Amino acid sequence: MFHHSAKLQYPVKVDKPNPEFAMLLQQAIGGIEGEIRVAMQYFFQAMGARGDDRIRDLLMSTATEELSHIEMLGHAVALNLEGAPVSYQEATAKDPIMNAILGGANPRHLLSSGLSAMPVNSNGVPFDMSHIYATGNVAADMLANVTAEASGRVLASRLYNWTDDHGMKDFLSFLIARDTYHQQQWLAVIEELGGLGANLPIPNSTPEDHEAMQHSYYYLNTLLDKEAPKGRWGEGPSFDGRSQFSVRNQPAPEGQEATLGMAKEKSGAQKDQIDPSK
Amino acid sequence: MFHHSAKLQYPVKVDKPNPEFAMLLQQAIGGIEGEIRVAMQYFFQAMGARGDDRIRDLLMSTATEELSHIEMLGHAVALNLEGAPVSYQEATAKDPIMNAILGGANPRHLLSSGLSAMPVNSNGVPFDMSHIYATGNVAADMLANVTAEASGRVLASRLYNWTDDHGMKDFLSFLIARDTYHQQQWLAVIEELGGLGANLPIPNSTPEDHEAMQHSYYYLNTLLDKEAPKGRWGEGPSFDGRSQFSVRNQPAPEGQEATLGMAKEKSGAQKDQIDPSK
Amino acid sequence: MFHHSAKLQYPVKVDKPNPEFAMLLQQAIGGIEGEIRVAMQYFFQAMGARGDDRIRDLLMSTATEELSHIEMLGHAVALNLEGAPVSYQEATAKDPIMNAILGGANPRHLLSSGLSAMPVNSNGVPFDMSHIYATGNVAADMLANVTAEASGRVLASRLYNWTDDHGMKDFLSFLIARDTYHQQQWLAVIEELGGLGANLPIPNSTPEDHEAMQHSYYYLNTLLDKEAPKGRWGEGPSFDGRSQFSVRNQPAPEGQEATLGMAKEKSGAQKDQIDPSK
Amino acid sequence: MFHHSAKLQYPVKVDKPNPEFAMLLQQAIGGIEGEIRVAMQYFFQAMGARGDDRIRDLLMSTATEELSHIEMLGHAVALNLEGAPVSYQEATAKDPIMNAILGGANPRHLLSSGLSAMPVNSNGVPFDMSHIYATGNVAADMLANVTAEASGRVLASRLYNWTDDHGMKDFLSFLIARDTYHQQQWLAVIEELGGLGANLPIPNSTPEDHEAMQHSYYYLNTLLDKEAPKGRWGEGPSFDGRSQFSVRNQPAPEGQEATLGMAKEKSGAQKDQIDPSK
Amino acid sequence: MFHHSAKLQYPVKVDKPNPEFAMLLQQAIGGIEGEIRVAMQYFFQAMGARGDDRIRDLLMSTATEELSHIEMLGHAVALNLEGAPVSYQEATAKDPIMNAILGGANPRHLLSSGLSAMPVNSNGVPFDMSHIYATGNVAADMLANVTAEASGRVLASRLYNWTDDHGMKDFLSFLIARDTYHQQQWLAVIEELGGLGANLPIPNSTPEDHEAMQHSYYYLNTLLDKEAPKGRWGEGPSFDGRSQFSVRNQPAPEGQEATLGMAKEKSGAQKDQIDPSK
Amino acid sequence: MFHHSAKLQYPVKVDKPNPEFAMLLQQAIGGIEGEIRVAMQYFFQAMGARGDDRIRDLLMSTATEELSHIEMLGHAVALNLEGAPVSYQEATAKDPIMNAILGGANPRHLLSSGLSAMPVNSNGVPFDMSHIYATGNVAADMLANVTAEASGRVLASRLYNWTDDHGMKDFLSFLIARDTYHQQQWLAVIEELGGLGANLPIPNSTPEDHEAMQHSYYYLNTLLDKEAPKGRWGEGPSFDGRSQFSVRNQPAPEGQEATLGMAKEKSGAQKDQIDPSK
Repeated sequence: MFHHSAKLQYPVKVDKPNPEFAMLLQQAIGGIEGEIRVAMQYFFQAMGARGDDRIRDLLMSTATEELSHIEMLGHAVALNLEGAPVSYQEATAKDPIMNAILGGANPRHLLSSGLSAMPVNSNGVPFDMSHIYATGNVAADMLANVTAEASGRVLASRLYNWTDDHGMKDFLSFLIARDTYHQQQWLAVIEELGGLGANLPIPNSTPEDHEAMQHSYYYLNTLLDKEAPKGRWGEGPSFDGRSQFSVRNQPAPEGQEATLGMAKEKSGAQKDQIDPSK
Repeated sequence: MFHHSAKLQYPVKVDKPNPEFAMLLQQAIGGIEGEIRVAMQYFFQAMGARGDDRIRDLLMSTATEELSHIEMLGHAVALNLEGAPVSYQEATAKDPIMNAILGGANPRHLLSSGLSAMPVNSNGVPFDMSHIYATGNVAADMLANVTAEASGRVLASRLYNWTDDHGMKDFLSFLIARDTYHQQQWLAVIEELGGLGANLPIPNSTPEDHEAMQHSYYYLNTLLDKEAPKGRWGEGPSFDGRSQFSVRNQPAPEGQEATLGMAKEKSGAQKDQIDPSK
Repeated sequence: MFHHSAKLQYPVKVDKPNPEFAMLLQQAIGGIEGEIRVAMQYFFQAMGARGDDRIRDLLMSTATEELSHIEMLGHAVALNLEGAPVSYQEATAKDPIMNAILGGANPRHLLSSGLSAMPVNSNGVPFDMSHIYATGNVAADMLANVTAEASGRVLASRLYNWTDDHGMKDFLSFLIARDTYHQQQWLAVIEELGGLGANLPIPNSTPEDHEAMQHSYYYLNTLLDKEAPKGRWGEGPSFDGRSQFSVRNQPAPEGQEATLGMAKEKSGAQKDQIDPSK
Repeated sequence: MFHHSAKLQYPVKVDKPNPEFAMLLQQAIGGIEGEIRVAMQYFFQAMGARGDDRIRDLLMSTATEELSHIEMLGHAVALNLEGAPVSYQEATAKDPIMNAILGGANPRHLLSSGLSAMPVNSNGVPFDMSHIYATGNVAADMLANVTAEASGRVLASRLYNWTDDHGMKDFLSFLIARDTYHQQQWLAVIEELGGLGANLPIPNSTPEDHEAMQHSYYYLNTLLDKEAPKGRWGEGPSFDGRSQFSVRNQPAPEGQEATLGMAKEKSGAQKDQIDPSK
Repeated sequence: MFHHSAKLQYPVKVDKPNPEFAMLLQQAIGGIEGEIRVAMQYFFQAMGARGDDRIRDLLMSTATEELSHIEMLGHAVALNLEGAPVSYQEATAKDPIMNAILGGANPRHLLSSGLSAMPVNSNGVPFDMSHIYATGNVAADMLANVTAEASGRVLASRLYNWTDDHGMKDFLSFLIARDTYHQQQWLAVIEELGGLGANLPIPNSTPEDHEAMQHSYYYLNTLLDKEAPKGRWGEGPSFDGRSQFSVRNQPAPEGQEATLGMAKEKSGAQKDQIDPSK
Repeated sequence: MFHHSAKLQYPVKVDKPNPEFAMLLQQAIGGIEGEIRVAMQYFFQAMGARGDDRIRDLLMSTATEELSHIEMLGHAVALNLEGAPVSYQEATAKDPIMNAILGGANPRHLLSSGLSAMPVNSNGVPFDMSHIYATGNVAADMLANVTAEASGRVLASRLYNWTDDHGMKDFLSFLIARDTYHQQQWLAVIEELGGLGANLPIPNSTPEDHEAMQHSYYYLNTLLDKEAPKGRWGEGPSFDGRSQFSVRNQPAPEGQEATLGMAKEKSGAQKDQIDPSK
């Protein structure tokens, strides 16, 4: 069950409202690298967590923290939209801001939300819940989580670089810090599960006889005009300890030509495609 | 530039066509764990790859292999749909198949595609290209790729468990094997980049003074009725070697209450919300 | 800032797991009538709330409760999926359940989520955040909220009618009750704002000279073969006290024919469409 | 059956074409507050209307009027795009318009539609028919319709405030007027059904024993650091006449901890998650 | 401006309600081959039509007819859902229908729409307005329209084959007939424009010096293991009368290797990717 | 099976990087007129091709070429983004570029992709695979392909007109040329199938007794205030040789009024809508 404090997790200040930056901040709310995504991803992983209950608790607890991050970002967007023009008279009086609203800002902050945050990215595209990755496999999910925190920290760093507002820089430095920790946190779960090697290949519960293992350890170089690049992927022991890496250059097809023959009658094809005996 | 052989990468045989399994296989084509996703993800990462050119070549070469996997799966779907009923007379004559088509199968295999594969998942939801994750940060992208191959191998294993068709089991064992390797391949890139530790936190190019580091290494336990679960995430050195992990239980908010005051005139709010002086 | 208790808001029990009902319950999680929608709608409305701070607190507090409803539903889905078959051998051994999984159940509960809840509706379509309605106008938002709770209670009632599981009926009777209250709660906000009449037309801050009021109070009957249906919409005083309702039958157009003339050169049209002088 | 007059419902004039305003107007066509939405919502509600046939006629007749609104807006967009530059030479010759097209305008008006309207919102996001709300419950649907007209009039008022084009202001004042009436019209239906009170809780056909009524009339204050805001939602008789409102502050969970135990074999989980006996 | 008759364009009867067929019919409403698509496509093309006004009138008039087709299909879906079970008791009493609802039918017909039509396809995926193709180029649009009517008639024929309900067969034979005519109608427009040859290549207003015409008339056979298939595409005069077709087998790349070099500082890349001088 | 050359199909040069043009070029990658669409459309049509195997080979070979077009466009986007500012200091130092990035450019090129191409259109909306049209009917598919190439060439021509970069103009003239050929190529397939007339109506395999042929050859003029426009669509022989065209002005409905009666008990309707005997 969830509870709420009326105060924010961390102070959010905007020194000088900027509707353009409001538009950019939306990426951190409703972008695929954003906070709705991690909040919901950890929440759904928690609700489906089977096995070690500590991991379920970690997931739910961190989902809860990420909800607090959405809340702070939503406040930051609204503060950046304070003072944006809402009428033509006002806008033409201060040209640069008009350009901001119409040019570099999200028109729906004016037209749809009444100068507040929306669950969309910086292009105004709504967040789509298909981005909640939760497989029921703990190792796959932990990697998905490290990935999400990595792209989240990349985004927060890019936003930090873009703004020169001290309030926003302070707030973003907090988000960068938490993304640092959450990368570590999910890697720590993998360590608790025995380390990455012990969990490979994912899922490690697939029996070996379900796998055509002669195809499991070579790099397939499909490039016709270059040799395979040299590197660890083509030589040395595999990370799961089961084999050695090798390389296949310019591989030839091993399968058949994929023809389907004629279509069935009554299948809606053209007459020329149909075999009446079918 | 791309080229094509008319033959498939690996033989695809179906012993007994099964329209229900055709529907399930769609997840491996147009699902978020599927082959369109990895083909396009590696392709777009390759087109944006900056830095070591070997990694660009790996990405493009593997994107090309994944296109060949889509091709095999598309053939597998069409073969499973051979012989499905297309008219009422036919269907009522053989009840179990009618139930299959209408109940356990995708009706659009009959109505829209003329008994062949579509770029949709097993619910019939079309693949959406927002799932192509390509950040321009090589470490974030490699983790996204290991994640994609992990969920792909989970899916292929589940499909293997579900079918009892020998042709399909053989084909899926090949996909399972390639997913094994591709997990290893992207981890090998991280090793070539100095190992995961050297790449943390991602992005490792963010200056430390952009980060509120006092918030970078503690686990925040937002659960009110339980202590933080004990584990590596709460103690010991951080994986990037910069600090030690710790725990904060039941944290209190540090920020302000997030109030916005009154709305602007002409902003489309109700009269009660508006401060006429604003 | 959000917090969490590990215990659920209300007990969730399933007497007899039923993968078909798991699929139906998804509508209450990721459907447009579902709990993600109301949780996020109230959350975003709260973050943009201007004016009376009590309403902001109501919105945030209720958003928090709705998150707890998602959590209970997610648990209910997972409990209903306990024991679902994951392999062919198992499935063919108990035919009715196999039919359930392949026919009346969501295949992604098997293939994608590992037998747990997903943020999708009962067709497997992911929830899309464009359904979060938050306009910055408190009256429009309160009506949107009553509407959401009305369709939510319709859904919960239909689910109640469908199942005969005592645990599920008990849980749904709780959701039905909370939907009853939340309808009342948002209507109570309108009463606090002076009642619906005082808030019409929404937005009530639009000056009358922005409105062609001669067109504001007639019912336009565009039906060619029937008179306008008789009722309150065509007679009596308007609810905002500004005018009387009337009816216009089979109205004629008042505007011009909408022709655009020729296309511009270099606009990508066909030669026949282009006026070279333009 | 539908019919058409070549003339518009109301005159649409543009004094000075403005590609930026064309982009903003798209919100009224393809936005969730726009005319495609109401036209299609009333159309689908009409096709599913059961009960009083007068309501079906109202719905279909008004759907027809809203189609005429789309038509006028589509013409308004095309007129605003007249004279927009389509080539670099032309654009650089008149800088401000080039900035308009590239900065504050929708590039697809140039690239995709050949300077005419599209079924998208002001961010260029296509309208998605999931926004057609039609539940089969007349009270829920009428509230959805008042809501849609409320957000529609908020939008039209914001557009009116933004433009200084006399033609556009005249046209928008007509849309504002019709939105006024349509709010009233759907409220009049509720009055004909006995008034809002008689229709609560929606659906009013749910038997009381399907509802845990001890949970139907209290406000749940999930805020930890504030008392519940005082207001009508927490005291006085309920609007359906069945009970009295009350308040529960800082509620404790009543349910169990939501643990799922171990995963099944062959479910695609990691070994550590699996209970081999399951 | 639009008008409406309360009667349908053509009689719609259902002899024996069938919820499974209701689900299939949804493809003709909200599928990409369906009637919402053509109605809206012709409507938007009409609103943007520049050039010959007769074509605008054709487009708007036919858009209007297609709206009437949606209306008939919506009625057909509702009639097919009459008598579907809405409660468990009812369903278990007549097993085959319960299987229909849960297995071969759309659960949202029960849960969301109250047994009536929705703007979704046969998988329950909502129609998305990005499928409205309207380019401002009359030849491209006419081809898009023939295409839409072709796939529409394929769909109607498949539905006809599937059902054995006399009412439905009669209704579908009407839709098949109108799709026949509309294919012809849009081809007749091309004939009025001088025939297909005169309109090639589309757009025929592109100056020849904007085109690398040495690449305009050869078939590129990218297959490595087969010669180009022989046919009209590889020999004979081009259909626009400008050249002769030819074939290039197994073409070699003409461009450069696509490398991007190092990333910029502060671009969010990993250190290894960054050139500090950039 | 697919293969790759590291070199591009055709040289791609950018004389002067322009982030605004990068944004416009995205339409040719991820727009509905773009290269992902044709590549995937031909690929899926090939995988489902039944009948003449030459057509399957054409489809797969051309799908392969289109993949090479995506690759060139992706490189063009990245080259246009070279040198775009990534920090506030840099941006304010060169005002016009800052305006470009924030105003006329895609913010996600900065925030999400690290200055490289994404699978989105020029509004930043991701490509959605529902746009892959593949019906299993060869004539419908060929028309869909000509249509796709027509809108593709319209787009390339508009992009050519917009830019004044010599490198980009050269590259676009190549794409324009290939779009010319591909229009011809798919028309050549129709010629090989006997010409368009022999293939009408599509599907030409529908038996005549499935069609209410009395409705197959008249133009229905639903306009109330204008006669039908005169033209080939209303007179002369039909293109399939089966009949003569005619016109019906201001048609009257032939069907019944579409009423549904009362709702079922337990269907979630309001009491007023329910017939308790149902």
